[in-house]
Amino acid sequence: MKNISESILTDIEKIRDLAPLVHNITNYVVMNSTANALLSLGASPVMAHALEEVEDMTSIAGTLVINIGTLSPGWVSAMHKAAEKASQLKKPIVLDPVGAGATGYRTSSVNELIETAVPAVIRGNASEIIALAGTDSNTKGVDSTQSSEAAVDVAKALSRRLGSVIVVSGAVDFIIRDDESAKVLNGDPLMGRVTGMGCTATALIGAFLAVNPDPFNAAANAMAVMGMAGETAALGAEGPGTFQARFLDALYRLEEQDVTERIRVE
Amino acid sequence: MKNISESILTDIEKIRDLAPLVHNITNYVVMNSTANALLSLGASPVMAHALEEVEDMTSIAGTLVINIGTLSPGWVSAMHKAAEKASQLKKPIVLDPVGAGATGYRTSSVNELIETAVPAVIRGNASEIIALAGTDSNTKGVDSTQSSEAAVDVAKALSRRLGSVIVVSGAVDFIIRDDESAKVLNGDPLMGRVTGMGCTATALIGAFLAVNPDPFNAAANAMAVMGMAGETAALGAEGPGTFQARFLDALYRLEEQDVTERIRVE
Amino acid sequence: MKNISESILTDIEKIRDLAPLVHNITNYVVMNSTANALLSLGASPVMAHALEEVEDMTSIAGTLVINIGTLSPGWVSAMHKAAEKASQLKKPIVLDPVGAGATGYRTSSVNELIETAVPAVIRGNASEIIALAGTDSNTKGVDSTQSSEAAVDVAKALSRRLGSVIVVSGAVDFIIRDDESAKVLNGDPLMGRVTGMGCTATALIGAFLAVNPDPFNAAANAMAVMGMAGETAALGAEGPGTFQARFLDALYRLEEQDVTERIRVE
Repeated sequence: MKNISESILTDIEKIRDLAPLVHNITNYVVMNSTANALLSLGASPVMAHALEEVEDMTSIAGTLVINIGTLSPGWVSAMHKAAEKASQLKKPIVLDPVGAGATGYRTSSVNELIETAVPAVIRGNASEIIALAGTDSNTKGVDSTQSSEAAVDVAKALSRRLGSVIVVSGAVDFIIRDDESAKVLNGDPLMGRVTGMGCTATALIGAFLAVNPDPFNAAANAMAVMGMAGETAALGAEGPGTFQARFLDALYRLEEQDVTERIRVE
Repeated sequence: MKNISESILTDIEKIRDLAPLVHNITNYVVMNSTANALLSLGASPVMAHALEEVEDMTSIAGTLVINIGTLSPGWVSAMHKAAEKASQLKKPIVLDPVGAGATGYRTSSVNELIETAVPAVIRGNASEIIALAGTDSNTKGVDSTQSSEAAVDVAKALSRRLGSVIVVSGAVDFIIRDDESAKVLNGDPLMGRVTGMGCTATALIGAFLAVNPDPFNAAANAMAVMGMAGETAALGAEGPGTFQARFLDALYRLEEQDVTERIRVE
Repeated sequence: MKNISESILTDIEKIRDLAPLVHNITNYVVMNSTANALLSLGASPVMAHALEEVEDMTSIAGTLVINIGTLSPGWVSAMHKAAEKASQLKKPIVLDPVGAGATGYRTSSVNELIETAVPAVIRGNASEIIALAGTDSNTKGVDSTQSSEAAVDVAKALSRRLGSVIVVSGAVDFIIRDDESAKVLNGDPLMGRVTGMGCTATALIGAFLAVNPDPFNAAANAMAVMGMAGETAALGAEGPGTFQARFLDALYRLEEQDVTERIRVE
């Protein structure tokens, strides 16, 4: 665990020092909570979706986070435009295929985005990753109907096909690149009772990618930080409401001792 | 009180077991807070408004919640499309006429939605319900200028005309179907200091409608749960901020003893 | 300090008594948190952006708050339409030029809005105010790269040119009208770790403008209340999450003793 703990602590220190700008084109539901998670971690979030400015904003940002949670044609156009610019400038993209599989519009929109620019990292729940891989996923809205384990094999195939790191999140998170994989065991069941915790994970991957050039490593570090902050937040929380406040506090206060004591990555 | 307590507890158990999918086409202000309230209660929320997917999403959902809080023509079109699909599939619709009466655009949009598909339940404050009934309501923005009692008679007339259950919320909540009515006395004044508590009530009615076939009963149970969770949350809250967190906790933790001790429905 | 304390307490009492309607055309990220701050203070917020209703909503409101945080052409049109109506009806406008300088689209949109109707108050961070004044500001997304002191001289020039009160917020807040200026020293560093605290300040200025006819005075009072509530919230907060809840509580509970003990305005 020593290597991963050190890597996490190095990344967090860089994020706190440099406050990298993370450009989010994301959904209405989580804009506030993901901006707050990025600020609590130490990054500098910006949300901007107008066709008139997405290229300019991507150009000054460290990374681009694309999340289709409340997609519509105008927003998808902006996602394409920003993704092309990020691709030209070799800035890493993180993609969150929220609800892929639940409607045909979501699945096809995500596939078209991936054709425009291959993301460095794609993070979804099992149903979403299975839908992306072209298999029937039975997504129920935006919640997964399957455990993350069920998506590991298709995630490996998807990673080989695209060259992206695939994160399948759930009670256990899998970080996958080709045949390489890591498992994050950290986390707490209360995280499933708060909207947008998956979206928050995706946004934090964006912050780690801004300071860590290895997307596999950046994604694993971000998922471990999510899980550890979730565990700290759950201690003393009386439900999903107090948990949310304590989660932001935990991201803000995360320090060496928390990481070395809590880390459970295989 | 025994019958209503049992009915509430049965519904909550079903919601927690089945996690029914509630499709919300709602306003930007409350998307996060209503999603969190639905998750805390045990339901599975999804927010989707693109014309390209609203029918698909309504098709897989248990109920459709329509809330015009930040309406615009594109969103209103999506509401019509989803409402038609829900109507075809006989899925219950809950309508929240936020700010009806404050502008002509709001009042006419709501009336057109009702013509497209009659909602199982309409929930508003007194000013909004009076505006819907075609009387001058003096709505001040989205806050009511009148107590809920003032709207009971017009709500009865509206219910007879439409066949919908009408909920007039306020310090006392009235649930009305034709000449039948129930009064929920539960609640706390702090609820009026948190944005979107009315919208949250509407969303929770959506969750109860997904497991309870009687819309009068489902609406009364949802309003009672709102009020009881509000009372629990207010204990120990130091203002509207800590109240919000504690409200979600209370929804999550609500159990038999809370209901039997607190319930005040007439 | 006695005069300013009295002026603040008088304004707060009026806001709590009258609950003035504040019409916000603002960004998706902060809609929920600014509505909650206005409610906690005692005002009545409404968010409405459709071209079909913005004039009607501005007509019944006390003040208009315009915030370009997630601007797009349709929303900017609504801002112009509402601003024209406010101007005709002599209702005060507060403008928040979020991210001006970060993209050309933001800077030009703000300048066009100011040409349509001169705001009573413009509040931004140093980078934003410098960008508005036409100087290169190096805005990093929506966060300032400079301290508020750095913008005082350009703010004075901008105020003389437009006739608006200019608020430059930061660790120290400057309220500027021509060559007159006030400094608010209240505040806490945690405020910089919560998204939309600047937007909240702008919204609260809107509430104070609804009850106080002097925009310089209203802006100074609002900024002092922000800072004092921030200090109260920081006591006992364990990070940005618990801070947010405690901040709303502090706005709700603010009373004479807090103001007289905490006020630091020069």
